[in-house]
Amino acid sequence: MRYQVEQPDPCSKGRIGLLTTNHAEIQTPAFMPVGSLGPVKGLESDDLQKLGFPLILNNAYHLYLRPGHKIVAEMGGLHAFTGWPGAILTDSGGFQIFSLAKLCDVTDDGVTFQSHIDGSRHFITPEKAIEIEEALGADIIMVLDQCVALPTGREVIQESVRRTKLWAERCQASRRRTDQALFGIVQGGLDPDLRLDSARELATLGFDGYAVGGLSVGEGKADMYAVLDLTVPELPEKKPRYLMGVGLPEDLVEGVARGIDLFDCVVPSRHGRTGSLFTASGRVVIKQAQYAVDERPVDPACACPVCRRYSRAYLHHLFAVKEMLGARLNTIHNLWYFSDLMRRIREALVEGRFAAFREAFYRDHDRQSEMTTGAANGEPELYSELHRSCHT
Amino acid sequence: MRYQVEQPDPCSKGRIGLLTTNHAEIQTPAFMPVGSLGPVKGLESDDLQKLGFPLILNNAYHLYLRPGHKIVAEMGGLHAFTGWPGAILTDSGGFQIFSLAKLCDVTDDGVTFQSHIDGSRHFITPEKAIEIEEALGADIIMVLDQCVALPTGREVIQESVRRTKLWAERCQASRRRTDQALFGIVQGGLDPDLRLDSARELATLGFDGYAVGGLSVGEGKADMYAVLDLTVPELPEKKPRYLMGVGLPEDLVEGVARGIDLFDCVVPSRHGRTGSLFTASGRVVIKQAQYAVDERPVDPACACPVCRRYSRAYLHHLFAVKEMLGARLNTIHNLWYFSDLMRRIREALVEGRFAAFREAFYRDHDRQSEMTTGAANGEPELYSELHRSCHT
Repeated sequence: MRYQVEQPDPCSKGRIGLLTTNHAEIQTPAFMPVGSLGPVKGLESDDLQKLGFPLILNNAYHLYLRPGHKIVAEMGGLHAFTGWPGAILTDSGGFQIFSLAKLCDVTDDGVTFQSHIDGSRHFITPEKAIEIEEALGADIIMVLDQCVALPTGREVIQESVRRTKLWAERCQASRRRTDQALFGIVQGGLDPDLRLDSARELATLGFDGYAVGGLSVGEGKADMYAVLDLTVPELPEKKPRYLMGVGLPEDLVEGVARGIDLFDCVVPSRHGRTGSLFTASGRVVIKQAQYAVDERPVDPACACPVCRRYSRAYLHHLFAVKEMLGARLNTIHNLWYFSDLMRRIREALVEGRFAAFREAFYRDHDRQSEMTTGAANGEPELYSELHRSCHT
Repeated sequence: MRYQVEQPDPCSKGRIGLLTTNHAEIQTPAFMPVGSLGPVKGLESDDLQKLGFPLILNNAYHLYLRPGHKIVAEMGGLHAFTGWPGAILTDSGGFQIFSLAKLCDVTDDGVTFQSHIDGSRHFITPEKAIEIEEALGADIIMVLDQCVALPTGREVIQESVRRTKLWAERCQASRRRTDQALFGIVQGGLDPDLRLDSARELATLGFDGYAVGGLSVGEGKADMYAVLDLTVPELPEKKPRYLMGVGLPEDLVEGVARGIDLFDCVVPSRHGRTGSLFTASGRVVIKQAQYAVDERPVDPACACPVCRRYSRAYLHHLFAVKEMLGARLNTIHNLWYFSDLMRRIREALVEGRFAAFREAFYRDHDRQSEMTTGAANGEPELYSELHRSCHT
């Protein structure tokens, strides 16, 4: 894997880069759709390629449990098994073990947990995580890290930072394949000192790329952005930086502004399946009765294959009758929105107008407050402060 | 709608024909995929077109209940609403009312039933059925008929034949649109005399096409084929003949041999969703453990988009984890098999070698007895007798 910063933004920490893997060239900043078990639910490889995604995320935890990494390896690795010709990044499963699995028991050796599927008991060490990810054969693999649920005590976070570094070293030491890139993961909760420690420690270990983990776990957006403000400058400038499990459209804009190159999130696909559709003018909740006789496309300004062909009324009908085609079409629309947003962000960076882009993004955002949910509500003022710091 | 018999088969009652509707030219014999609520579950219009289907079936009963025929009409009719550019046939809902709905109460006036969705009460007359189908706006619409569950007494069947004719006349009389073709439906259970009566009565009424209904309801294949042997010769030669709700691959071959031009069935899509895949060498039940590490495509002899890209192992995995993409891919494969079978049947008819085709079909069929299920098992001998009658 090679990574090249091609153009830093003069008005933010944003940057245009080119990530070259064995299976694809990825212009960054980029968003990775999530196919936990292989496919993005309901979508084929062709769909993702048409949507403009050269890189997707598969999840080692899920694939280790089903069908098993050895079967995937026997079938020629993830690319051959899933029929995806582009690049793949596998999450090590650290986050899923701590969020999905039952009865986690963590020591420095590794983590013992029960499968969320059948309750079977498993023991994963850093070495085992690498063995699994090497068997799966993604282009980019992640170290095993220890995530902690927030809020929690400083000691717990400190311990997880220490262990995450320890595990990162062991992951590095246990690698056998030389054709995969390995990314380290920064932990540290919302504690500024521990985040700095973690970032610096990881940086000295020398990874092919660096991820900021342990965010988007319920903290407020201001907290998340503050962690990025603090952490990203500690990461090697010439390596790609990946914000794990994030996020909503505004998080992508803010992440890019803080120097993030890669994102992944289930938001576009999961929101698609639940009928929550992203548009330039806010969120369309397709199950609402008002859409039953609405002949317009989801977003009249959208050029996606769904908006070109189908009406809100039809998508409302598909959702109402629980037709899986509805989940598929909604996911395609949302992923197009995310792909297009990243394309517009890159274009703005290339043309030196990212600050103006960011401002325009929030003008639309403020106008349509329903576009944001949960922690985002009520925070446009904060964003406005943040994004104007350079533009003036 | 126009229909032209282009080439009768010298060795059977099979025939090549061309059905021309406002939305598509359909070479017959043809199979219609079933999209009860609009889409074939999980598939888009593009998928169906790529699979070579110019004509699909939508179901008036389901669409009347959800989203309602008036909404479909307001959205411009089925073609505009669902985004399907090809031709559409709507079943009147007769079969669904008698098989799905609760508390059916039938009089000569019409049928009162409770929705299988919410228990709401509805009263459908022949006039109402036509009103619904005209609002939906398919290219071909069906009369409201009375289906009876078999086995039952002769009086019950006799009554349904009488009522079906009465309703067929009222359907004819109540039409307002002139741009839709209306097909009559022959009933009569397995009673030879009543089938003959029904076919002759319907024929005298003068429909644009004729359907044989009330079959594939649990009777043996020999009974079904006997009804066709008896009924089809009574239907006008110059009009298309449609065998409703049928069937398995061997039923299509036998139906064609008996002069049937159109078929519809949920078999390819429903079997796809449950992981039962049609191949030239028998059925592949994808959930079986043997496929977990099987790198071959479902059918090495198949040129479908699924067999070109995905392994049995991957489809096994998708089925095991209940991923909706599995249902979609399996449905695409099965529909390709049906589309390809009909293409090969038409080719054989055109080239005057349908008898040889039918014989070869049963040679494969006999070799792979698992290809047939239920009533079909143990019947290859009978087929052999039947299909050799002309070939010698």
